[in-house]
Amino acid sequence: MAADLPGEFEIIERFFSPLSKGVSGAFGLKDDAAVLDCEAGRDFVVTTDCLVSGVHFLADDPPGSIAHKAFAVNGSDLAAMGAKAKAYTLALALPKGTTEAWLIDFIQGISAFLDRFGAALVGGDTVATEGPLTASVTAIGTVGIGQALTRSAAKPGDAIFVSGTIGDGALGLRAARGGLGDLPAYARAFFVDRYRRPTPRLELGHRLVGFASAAIDISDGLLADLEHICRCSNVEARIDLGHIPLSEPAKALVSGAGVDIDELISGGDDYELLFTAPPEMVGEISDLAEEIGLPISRIGVTQQRGEGQSVGTVIDENGRELTHGEIGYRHF
Amino acid sequence: MAADLPGEFEIIERFFSPLSKGVSGAFGLKDDAAVLDCEAGRDFVVTTDCLVSGVHFLADDPPGSIAHKAFAVNGSDLAAMGAKAKAYTLALALPKGTTEAWLIDFIQGISAFLDRFGAALVGGDTVATEGPLTASVTAIGTVGIGQALTRSAAKPGDAIFVSGTIGDGALGLRAARGGLGDLPAYARAFFVDRYRRPTPRLELGHRLVGFASAAIDISDGLLADLEHICRCSNVEARIDLGHIPLSEPAKALVSGAGVDIDELISGGDDYELLFTAPPEMVGEISDLAEEIGLPISRIGVTQQRGEGQSVGTVIDENGRELTHGEIGYRHF
Repeated sequence: MAADLPGEFEIIERFFSPLSKGVSGAFGLKDDAAVLDCEAGRDFVVTTDCLVSGVHFLADDPPGSIAHKAFAVNGSDLAAMGAKAKAYTLALALPKGTTEAWLIDFIQGISAFLDRFGAALVGGDTVATEGPLTASVTAIGTVGIGQALTRSAAKPGDAIFVSGTIGDGALGLRAARGGLGDLPAYARAFFVDRYRRPTPRLELGHRLVGFASAAIDISDGLLADLEHICRCSNVEARIDLGHIPLSEPAKALVSGAGVDIDELISGGDDYELLFTAPPEMVGEISDLAEEIGLPISRIGVTQQRGEGQSVGTVIDENGRELTHGEIGYRHF
Repeated sequence: MAADLPGEFEIIERFFSPLSKGVSGAFGLKDDAAVLDCEAGRDFVVTTDCLVSGVHFLADDPPGSIAHKAFAVNGSDLAAMGAKAKAYTLALALPKGTTEAWLIDFIQGISAFLDRFGAALVGGDTVATEGPLTASVTAIGTVGIGQALTRSAAKPGDAIFVSGTIGDGALGLRAARGGLGDLPAYARAFFVDRYRRPTPRLELGHRLVGFASAAIDISDGLLADLEHICRCSNVEARIDLGHIPLSEPAKALVSGAGVDIDELISGGDDYELLFTAPPEMVGEISDLAEEIGLPISRIGVTQQRGEGQSVGTVIDENGRELTHGEIGYRHF
């Protein structure tokens, strides 16, 4: 029992209720459930991701960053479907001994996330656990009827694009664990921030509806997630490793010692959008990138699956098959 | 690492994908999110509840029962809002060492629940934890626009009703822990089943729309949950303890030694519906009970809050104020 945390009802009243941001159907998180209105001409989009301390974030990450990440990874899934965020729920299992100061910082992280990326917290449950902190978020968004972007609609000959820069999240995890040697302080801070506080590409995601053929957010790593698109769409992909967008600090590491591009495209936690589009859309996508101020790089092309090629193959510009051992992170 | 659990993708494919029950927008749980269509004239209703092993169920409960309970407590919240169930998501944190046999039983529990109470699993996340099993379910339902039942619309003079029988869940927890002495085997099994496999009153809940003024499901205990309605509706309640519906095995315990009615109305885990309705609705509610084959008992009346009475007071037929120490279960 942590004497310094108030009871469940006071926690709701003081901490969680304000996160409903005045949405009337949330009833201040004090009723049995929330009521959300349907929007004419739009479908609902729903996703759930669960983060466990020590697995998906480090136990000593700042509470506000943990909160940010729990919401961001779910917002990122909405973005990958071309959806706009509408509401979130949070099921939070707190270790005994959690302090009020910790909770206040965590709540501020949620609040800042919601203010920046839109939508409100409309439901939640806070329980105690003997185990590590576990945060399960469900994100609910909306998309035009029948317009959701999936992993399965890429066609041979589509161009492959990725937003932002790749590999910073994986480098951030190494940096947060004290790795990467004598990295300059600004680079370390940059990588760690990218790992702890990924930016869900919600603005880009819903703008891709009508342009993109298939989309996914990069959580398992560019290579693994591109394989998901290839497998679901029954195509293979050819990417140009020289076109993989890297941040300046990542470029410095790749041109120096110790980090190679294969590692960056295999690392997870980028939360950039990876998508395909018919080649005639290249101009529109370039305009869109400029309009929303987010770099979008064309990194390759999808093609008919080769005779005898296994499902989901990705090759580089020299025809070398790219592999990464396990597909994504193996938890069990 | 439990060598006997397959990897995350195989778990989804073999175990979770069939739980989407053919709902096309769930994409077999293999895309970034699910797409749900809006129903004309209806709102969405959303709730999240999180169950932790050792807190909300016993670690040695059968896996199928744990699954049932995780879904049932969320379905019960939908019922309390007058909603019909449409979809569920599940975030499951599994302890290292979880076996495939355990998971198969758990999945069967979900499948049986969905078949019996309707709706499909449309999203999920399965992760490993060093801590106790944690299951966070989000339930999504629908209700006519503006027709959701809340805790806050009871009026003085409304009749107070409760479905089913009260106290079996709390007795079931005691029985499952080996308490209640030399209980007959059939009674022990009855109580334990009521604790482990509560029945969400979904059929009743959505039929109460248009009849009930306020509603809540009984998770914290009849008394605590009636206090929630009283507080939110700014009324007080007078209940007749002789009218609290008890199962035959519970009656036998109350007339024997060791259990009194105060304990039963303070115990949680009933997952019956507690609701208020204008007195002129009594006939309709009686007809409804008969039609759906579920006993509904009239247990009291709401009244104007007395001068100097604190918010949420519940008194018995003799004017005795009923108290239960902590409001509900205190986790922290």
